[in-house]
Amino acid sequence: MAVYTEVGDDELDAFLADYELGALMSCKGIAEGVENSNFLLHCEAGFFILTLYEKRTSASDLPFFLGLMEHLSEHGVTCPLPVRNRRGDALGALAGRPAAIVTFLEGRSIKRPDSRHCGMVGEALAKLHRAGEGFALARPNALSVDGWSQLFGDAQARADAVSPGLSRVLADELALLRREWPGDLPSGVVHADLFPDNVFFLGGALSGLIDFYFACNDAFAYDLAICLNAWCFEPDASFNITKGMSLIAGYRRVRPLSARELDCLPLLARGAALRFLLTRLVDWLDTPDGAMVKKKDPLEYLKKLRFHQQATSPRDYGASQ
Amino acid sequence: MAVYTEVGDDELDAFLADYELGALMSCKGIAEGVENSNFLLHCEAGFFILTLYEKRTSASDLPFFLGLMEHLSEHGVTCPLPVRNRRGDALGALAGRPAAIVTFLEGRSIKRPDSRHCGMVGEALAKLHRAGEGFALARPNALSVDGWSQLFGDAQARADAVSPGLSRVLADELALLRREWPGDLPSGVVHADLFPDNVFFLGGALSGLIDFYFACNDAFAYDLAICLNAWCFEPDASFNITKGMSLIAGYRRVRPLSARELDCLPLLARGAALRFLLTRLVDWLDTPDGAMVKKKDPLEYLKKLRFHQQATSPRDYGASQ
Repeated sequence: MAVYTEVGDDELDAFLADYELGALMSCKGIAEGVENSNFLLHCEAGFFILTLYEKRTSASDLPFFLGLMEHLSEHGVTCPLPVRNRRGDALGALAGRPAAIVTFLEGRSIKRPDSRHCGMVGEALAKLHRAGEGFALARPNALSVDGWSQLFGDAQARADAVSPGLSRVLADELALLRREWPGDLPSGVVHADLFPDNVFFLGGALSGLIDFYFACNDAFAYDLAICLNAWCFEPDASFNITKGMSLIAGYRRVRPLSARELDCLPLLARGAALRFLLTRLVDWLDTPDGAMVKKKDPLEYLKKLRFHQQATSPRDYGASQ
Repeated sequence: MAVYTEVGDDELDAFLADYELGALMSCKGIAEGVENSNFLLHCEAGFFILTLYEKRTSASDLPFFLGLMEHLSEHGVTCPLPVRNRRGDALGALAGRPAAIVTFLEGRSIKRPDSRHCGMVGEALAKLHRAGEGFALARPNALSVDGWSQLFGDAQARADAVSPGLSRVLADELALLRREWPGDLPSGVVHADLFPDNVFFLGGALSGLIDFYFACNDAFAYDLAICLNAWCFEPDASFNITKGMSLIAGYRRVRPLSARELDCLPLLARGAALRFLLTRLVDWLDTPDGAMVKKKDPLEYLKKLRFHQQATSPRDYGASQ
């Protein structure tokens, strides 16, 4: 949950005066996202989300994120659409922070997705990859191999306190991934964080995607590997191949995967597992006990990593060649 | 901010199936209230607030709180109206907790109220006191003199760590209030927590009152004294007599204050200041450092108490006799 910044009445009114949304009737801090402060606004023009970007979101990346949501909306992806103010700007400042207003998206995220949801997510991911073509801006993935090395450096000395032997596992995995990480896969704009939290469903259909604040340019198949990690494991960390099959088949209905992309899936899935293992580990180590923020268990991703380490073929994920 | 409990998709659907609100289109945890978990629901029938009552709200008090909101709504107070399910119940259970749905109230709370707002609050408070007449249930105020003694017992040994000498000040004040607390003032249902957070304004008018989870039976003038504490001090802890005047005059436009009630105001204001000083102090001492919950400064109420200690007449609050 996330409301880190309090916004004064007058500064909010002054900020909104720049927009053509009519009078503000209510403003509620909402527990959505973990990096930024989010408020649900009810204005005469309807419901909107106001986001104040806190320090973990780099201000220089905001034109990429906001521009991307605009580009994707224009190309058929249902995602929050940034609202431009009277000067034509999607990005403003409020309470000393960069701030933006986006449209409110109906729908509910699903805590326990089934294979039908996975199929819809695969399709939506491929549509997003296609829709991102032609987007003018680019943003390298700060959380790819080099980023993992930095995170490992931060956590290395303390990792064994979380799980004995973890530091060794991470070092070995990182070395292997540095050596074998493929640099030649079809790439473009990826979401890079398409967890169940960030996908809305309504009336049995996928109704939209949110939270583009990790979006970047990277291999499309890596984004698929992130989704395999995020959507296809059971609570006991066992991989559900029916869900994997459904996710991959959904993806391929919209964007074909090359033989090379398929072959790389086990390795990409290892990388994706390591990425979330490392960020969760650093958050785990750096968040004080008793803090109300819900710490996500890094070891969930250690278990997932172990699955990927023994996978040898895309068939292990439910992909037919 | 408050979302302490996660609600599963299926249990939420099952809970809502008991209501005639149509399909659920979105559900967002909101940062409102500090004791319970609150969600903003968008159903086909409109927007509603779902509250899960956490352990600090006693389940046995819920019929009083929910019944009161219903009674007040029927008697002209704009406040959240509990929605009854198909069985006619306003109170249900969800995620192992008592749960209720109430109507969504438009409006914004004002962080920096001016004397105009204070006048409207005084009026609304008196209307609430009148509207509460005839409400069938009763609830003693657990946070009156006896409750303060208990809180002091909890905090006594640690109080001086927060401010040197605080324990002595609290002991003396408590002794005086125990001795002099009036038991014979006109009483009835009071809100007991009508802080700016809990009052909504819209288009320059007061649009509603929320958060009745401290409501109880007590002296009306004590409720007014709570509002004097909550609305009429400046950020530097100086009392703004223009605001006090406006608040009291607003109140008296709707419900006259007797000479005895007016005479008791300084004492009641001391009691109200001690009540919030003590609850904030206990929260301050019991909340771990680094917790994301925003701790309210108990010493703000020590400063207010000092003001009340030197007040000798209701005129010090802006009341004309």
